[in-house]
Amino acid sequence: MPLESGEKLGPITIAYETYGLLNKDKSNAILLLHPSTADAHAAGLHEGSNETGWWDCMVGPGKAFDTRHYFVICSNVLGGCYGSTGPSSAHPGTTKPYGLDFPVISVADMVNAQRHLIDFLGIEKLLCVAGGQMGGMQALAWVALYPKRVRSAIPIATTLRHSPQQIAFNELARQAITADPDWHKGHYYSGNRPEAGLAVARMINNITFMTDRVMEEKFTRRLKDPAESAKFTDDFEVEGYTKYRNDWFVKHFDPNSFLYLTKAMDRFDLSRGKLFASGRPVRTRFLVVGFLTDWLYPPYQSLEIARELKSRKGDATYCEINSKYGHNAFLIGAEEITHLIRHFVQTDIFW
Amino acid sequence: MPLESGEKLGPITIAYETYGLLNKDKSNAILLLHPSTADAHAAGLHEGSNETGWWDCMVGPGKAFDTRHYFVICSNVLGGCYGSTGPSSAHPGTTKPYGLDFPVISVADMVNAQRHLIDFLGIEKLLCVAGGQMGGMQALAWVALYPKRVRSAIPIATTLRHSPQQIAFNELARQAITADPDWHKGHYYSGNRPEAGLAVARMINNITFMTDRVMEEKFTRRLKDPAESAKFTDDFEVEGYTKYRNDWFVKHFDPNSFLYLTKAMDRFDLSRGKLFASGRPVRTRFLVVGFLTDWLYPPYQSLEIARELKSRKGDATYCEINSKYGHNAFLIGAEEITHLIRHFVQTDIFW
Repeated sequence: MPLESGEKLGPITIAYETYGLLNKDKSNAILLLHPSTADAHAAGLHEGSNETGWWDCMVGPGKAFDTRHYFVICSNVLGGCYGSTGPSSAHPGTTKPYGLDFPVISVADMVNAQRHLIDFLGIEKLLCVAGGQMGGMQALAWVALYPKRVRSAIPIATTLRHSPQQIAFNELARQAITADPDWHKGHYYSGNRPEAGLAVARMINNITFMTDRVMEEKFTRRLKDPAESAKFTDDFEVEGYTKYRNDWFVKHFDPNSFLYLTKAMDRFDLSRGKLFASGRPVRTRFLVVGFLTDWLYPPYQSLEIARELKSRKGDATYCEINSKYGHNAFLIGAEEITHLIRHFVQTDIFW
Repeated sequence: MPLESGEKLGPITIAYETYGLLNKDKSNAILLLHPSTADAHAAGLHEGSNETGWWDCMVGPGKAFDTRHYFVICSNVLGGCYGSTGPSSAHPGTTKPYGLDFPVISVADMVNAQRHLIDFLGIEKLLCVAGGQMGGMQALAWVALYPKRVRSAIPIATTLRHSPQQIAFNELARQAITADPDWHKGHYYSGNRPEAGLAVARMINNITFMTDRVMEEKFTRRLKDPAESAKFTDDFEVEGYTKYRNDWFVKHFDPNSFLYLTKAMDRFDLSRGKLFASGRPVRTRFLVVGFLTDWLYPPYQSLEIARELKSRKGDATYCEINSKYGHNAFLIGAEEITHLIRHFVQTDIFW
């Protein structure tokens, strides 16, 4: 597959899951696009596991993406580490992982890989593409690259391009990983993983995805052991929480994937007309969703997407949801967003 | 000096600077309290240097703290690394720095050390104590500990206690330092300093002290070299900015001081009545200042200080300033804050 950078990558594996049934005229397919650290497992349970998918609250019979009506697809992104080709995959012809020999990939490359999957499934036109954060970027890139293949799009808590602040937080996380002596310039696959660095990166995500009010509710501020007060130990529950060393994510996510995916997000830029690469006004219907308390992807960025669409005579609705959960709100199936999405998607299929 | 923890510390050196002249009845002394990473050099130039003090915009003839009228004092805090006793000072009777053998210190301990300085200068009552961030905490602690020795106080962009979010950002910075292999559990004084970790800590400060709008103005988002686009290099100016390896701060600030001072801030807690340790209503006059765009020390925290004071019949004025500079606003001598402080302090001396 040719990449946006001009490099070539292949062969490529794309891991995916589907939920519900594809109808006869293949008009009920919805592609869910995951945020940077998630995977193809959007909903339900795998046999023998009690780990539900990352958007389980939104996907299933009677839920926003109602699997009694829709054929829902979710794939692990190119560059990821949960089944799709990424830096931890074997370099072709060898058993050695790519590491930093993996080429830099873009959000457009992720979408192109997904397009191959959609072709493979025999779907000409997607009823809807939807996702939050990096998933929202992919939804926008789908419209920019393949406007005729997308009937509607739901970019959530996302942006046309990262602000310097968003880039700086990602860069902080990348520095934490690459400063870990176990990182070894990306060649750690046969030794210790740079888990201390990845834990700091994970902390940064968790702090910036939440609001200070939610953290206040979640953690008491009580000193753990007053007798220890003259020593340099962890005092507060919040610090225990932020030490992710034993976190499932830290044990399983590939640190190099973290580097590549955040870089793809930082380089993403569909501002100043680039959303309309095809040159024609967008026909895709848009539901753009922002969250009032999301300070990492502030609502003004979602509003900019809607403004950009409307200025090109696009069909766009902007909804700002008053959730208290900050950026995390898009992962929580609150009544309001469930309702919005259900009706937006329904309108399209029953038109 | 006995510490709040019960430990003892001594002998103690306190580095300080003064500006202006102490009047005959010693009634015109203003104590400036510095934020965590600053020093005693609040204003003016040292001979042979063109580095002005950290609050130079506010201190001098005709400025908010007018040195034609006031005797202005600023000391490096206990636990700091710019002249006052801290983790990098020699353990008494040895030439070896304390490192982590330095006892945990509190904001109250910093204030007690300053009180010795004020006694030494023969000042019974301070006209004003003023500072932002950790400096604001010290101003509050002065009133809690020595209400009769402070006529007025100006806590700026500060809080009665850190929220879990503020603790989490500090903990992130501490983790970055302690994860640096050069940190060696605090015993790095004869070898390489953990500058990579300190650089990350510095980045965290800089990102959280600014607003995303100001970062947007400050940095273009242009790729540095498009030819490099397939490689894993730094792309954006903002990333270059966040790499502080050659920053003066990173070369000079003691990483252990960073740990101790942020810990003192995280443990600081004058909420729920503790501001009135003496049990009597506060007689000190207060000007409490918050900044609208400060998301690290949000205005609601300043408002809580004012509310706490008013509920005890304290004389408190709360001013929220509409600056675009976020938490950094307190270091920038904008017209509005200069005006507020000048008149607040004047009222007191001419009463």
